[in-house]
Amino acid sequence: MKIKKNAIYAQSGGVTAVINASAAGVINACRQYSDQIGTLYAGANGILGVLNEELIDTSLEPQSMIDALRHTPGGAFGSCRYKLKSLEQNRREYERLIEIFAAYDIGYFFYNGGNDSADTCLKVSQIAEELGYPIHAIHVPKTIDNDLVVTDNCPGFGSVAKYVATSIREAGFDLESMYKTSTKVFILEVMGRNAGWIAAACGLASESEEQPPHIILFPEITFDEDGFIQKVKYSVENYGYCVVAVSEGLKDRYGMELSASQHTVDDFGHHQLGGVAPVIAGIIKKRLGYKYHWAVADYLQRAARHIASAVDVEQAYQLGFKGVEMALAGANAVMPYIKRVSTTPYQWSIEQVALKQVANKEKFMPRDFISEDGFHIAEPCREYILPLIEGEDYPPYKNGLPDYVRLNKQHVVKKLKDFN
Amino acid sequence: MKIKKNAIYAQSGGVTAVINASAAGVINACRQYSDQIGTLYAGANGILGVLNEELIDTSLEPQSMIDALRHTPGGAFGSCRYKLKSLEQNRREYERLIEIFAAYDIGYFFYNGGNDSADTCLKVSQIAEELGYPIHAIHVPKTIDNDLVVTDNCPGFGSVAKYVATSIREAGFDLESMYKTSTKVFILEVMGRNAGWIAAACGLASESEEQPPHIILFPEITFDEDGFIQKVKYSVENYGYCVVAVSEGLKDRYGMELSASQHTVDDFGHHQLGGVAPVIAGIIKKRLGYKYHWAVADYLQRAARHIASAVDVEQAYQLGFKGVEMALAGANAVMPYIKRVSTTPYQWSIEQVALKQVANKEKFMPRDFISEDGFHIAEPCREYILPLIEGEDYPPYKNGLPDYVRLNKQHVVKKLKDFN
Repeated sequence: MKIKKNAIYAQSGGVTAVINASAAGVINACRQYSDQIGTLYAGANGILGVLNEELIDTSLEPQSMIDALRHTPGGAFGSCRYKLKSLEQNRREYERLIEIFAAYDIGYFFYNGGNDSADTCLKVSQIAEELGYPIHAIHVPKTIDNDLVVTDNCPGFGSVAKYVATSIREAGFDLESMYKTSTKVFILEVMGRNAGWIAAACGLASESEEQPPHIILFPEITFDEDGFIQKVKYSVENYGYCVVAVSEGLKDRYGMELSASQHTVDDFGHHQLGGVAPVIAGIIKKRLGYKYHWAVADYLQRAARHIASAVDVEQAYQLGFKGVEMALAGANAVMPYIKRVSTTPYQWSIEQVALKQVANKEKFMPRDFISEDGFHIAEPCREYILPLIEGEDYPPYKNGLPDYVRLNKQHVVKKLKDFN
Repeated sequence: MKIKKNAIYAQSGGVTAVINASAAGVINACRQYSDQIGTLYAGANGILGVLNEELIDTSLEPQSMIDALRHTPGGAFGSCRYKLKSLEQNRREYERLIEIFAAYDIGYFFYNGGNDSADTCLKVSQIAEELGYPIHAIHVPKTIDNDLVVTDNCPGFGSVAKYVATSIREAGFDLESMYKTSTKVFILEVMGRNAGWIAAACGLASESEEQPPHIILFPEITFDEDGFIQKVKYSVENYGYCVVAVSEGLKDRYGMELSASQHTVDDFGHHQLGGVAPVIAGIIKKRLGYKYHWAVADYLQRAARHIASAVDVEQAYQLGFKGVEMALAGANAVMPYIKRVSTTPYQWSIEQVALKQVANKEKFMPRDFISEDGFHIAEPCREYILPLIEGEDYPPYKNGLPDYVRLNKQHVVKKLKDFN
């Protein structure tokens, strides 16, 4: 019979509307398999909490709170932007992790993050092997950017996709009723870094050419100012108005991000402080003179649990749950991922892949997901994203607002010397 | 027995998530009282459509579409920012309205808007009286800014309040999990012009001092940069992070808007606002050096029908419906308004008030609704706003997105000469 071991869970990188659903999946699986897994600890503020022995005892959280995690945005245990260096550059940190694992009799490490954490998780398994410490290191995927390879999609993306598509559709209805005497162009800036998946999701709101958004600017397509201006003009002249979705990572022909354009100065001589939407607005004002409005959703989009996709929530939960089952089945240095079995009707399963095949790779929009002129999505893209935003998974409300929870987060008493 | 007359409905000014619920109320009441009201026409793009004889025959819209209006944002018939000048300055426009009324045998005029349209509605009733044309001119209130007098609250406000409070709560959960190694300050810019009601609504998200938002910047309180910086520092040092809600209309001690990077003025003489969040971010960066993010919700907030307040939707509908009943009971130059009967439990009724008492007045936040230091809401404000965001009124979804409708908007054949 297998010896019972403890486990550690940590959240990494930018949080999402559903990363806590993955946490709930991990915790519930550990509770279900309590014959094989002892205590599940969580790193306070991600891997930093593990390094600094700031561990939360998840067994002290009542089941009702774990259930509520499924509908609570943000990272319930705290996350961090902290990338462990390479083994050569900072072997001490990896050794410290193994030291912590040994002190807490850890047999399972569940790391919930994006590209960087897949890489860290892989290295943890490598150093553990080198040092002869037995560990099952599992990477539970998460990123709104949807840029992990192998997996059909990434948990967090479906919900942000539903949010941006809903938001731009709603803003489109607003503009459609006002353009006659007021705003003619509306620009919504969305996240996604170098990948245009979130910008692409805005395209779902438009079900025919005249419906907003009329233009999508992808980071994968070099910004063509003249072509863009022509397209805006066409939209205003033919539909009365123009709604634009722009990705934060939009680049000019020199590969420079447009948002980094510190040359943009307003009427008072103030520099624009970030934000590609105001830059695009400025170009429209200068070249066409149309009245415009712009919005930058920023964190609102990745925290918008109130309009999460039911598919996304369930996938996030299952990836956490199945990740634990894979570890118990003996897996190490793997990532549970989503395999699309069928698009119509949408069917998916969870499989596992070696982290070596995932770490440090990025998945961009394929060119055939983008329309020929580069300014909208193409049909294959619509077919790909649509199932991912299916279903509403509303949180409970209290006093008119979503009733999100904060955990007790009881820390365990430290056993080791401080790490520094 | 009363002679059957036709009616005109028009939407005015910035649209809201629930102005179409008022439209549905007006239309359904007219259909219910079809023994007294003949055809209900709607002005295409508001009062401009009436002036230009661009009238939509609402009787050609099937009942299912009218029912769907209740959950569709924007202005279904089109709205406009077009303020009729004073009677002295532009008597022709008012006479044209009466000419249209006469041509279409109009006995009832329902004008759905904010401050400016209340004034227009009043003038229409005055010129009609002067010219001996019998009309019942009813102003159906609407404004997200919540700045109309007499009425306890304005339809549109409850939904935007629910949206901003939800959004800032969600962004707060995001920040709370990331501040250790990433963003320490988040700023959300909200609408409201010179009134701080929407900014105040953000305060509902915070149920204790350490919960976000930690700071609210109202247009009613002159921006005190030093006090603000101290407060941000305190929040970051004590809670680890700081979430700020800022009203677009925030002013410095010279009465200048901080966002005044645009000199654009609309037809009502209002400055086009937007962009105070990056200004505040710049101040924080310069004085404290904290890493920040900011969001500008812009139209997203007033179009967010997906998270409308059930109370708001019902009040908007009832104001439209009761407005028709008031007209049928003989009222003229009045506005149906919401009277708060009790706060706990929340009870309200719809009463009527003479437009003379409403037009051209603005209601700002009372000083005792704002905390002593000027940076948050006080208890009376919380008690006032809370009932207005109660209840969820979700739209139906199709393909993962809210299923909003576009009307047929069949125009009637013109009878008169063009107006110009």
